[in-house]
Amino acid sequence: MNIANTPETPYYAVIFTSVLSTATAEYTKMADEMEQLAKKQPGFLGIESARNELGITVSYWETEEAITQWKRNARHLFAQQRGKEEWYKQYQVRVCKVERAYRF
Amino acid sequence: MNIANTPETPYYAVIFTSVLSTATAEYTKMADEMEQLAKKQPGFLGIESARNELGITVSYWETEEAITQWKRNARHLFAQQRGKEEWYKQYQVRVCKVERAYRF
Repeated sequence: MNIANTPETPYYAVIFTSVLSTATAEYTKMADEMEQLAKKQPGFLGIESARNELGITVSYWETEEAITQWKRNARHLFAQQRGKEEWYKQYQVRVCKVERAYRF
Repeated sequence: MNIANTPETPYYAVIFTSVLSTATAEYTKMADEMEQLAKKQPGFLGIESARNELGITVSYWETEEAITQWKRNARHLFAQQRGKEEWYKQYQVRVCKVERAYRF
């Protein structure tokens, strides 16, 4: 996992913050599958994630429309439903416009 | 560390993604100090962080002006300089407007 190599601003970010209730092997498998699937979506720019007590995954997108399409992806909808029923104690999704960025 | 209890959108987020070159006790101490100091800044709304190979810290702010003021805080400027010289192999800062949010 590296820092995402995103283009010039503006672009969009989805900040997904979560607390797991149970971290099963099945969850890990589904999370990996979703990451691979997101990478194939139109408008995908990059993804970054880390987890301790809190999990944070930030995905980057060219447009808001690309985010909406990804949210509605059939396999992703299934994963979202399983997540609510089984894996997540709590989560928060924040959709953002990245206005400026700098790196070191 | 909990999911930040942020208000109705819009508000602002700073996504700070980093790779450490060396994780010393001194770094951990400074990171804790910066978190405590950020919490005292005007316009601070919350903070979330996690680290594996990649560290992700997202801080939330009422306005862009609050972010600018925090960036210029004297002790924070010192920490940024130490970070570049000693602790960070690489980092990326992204300043975002949070346009919509939903939770479970």
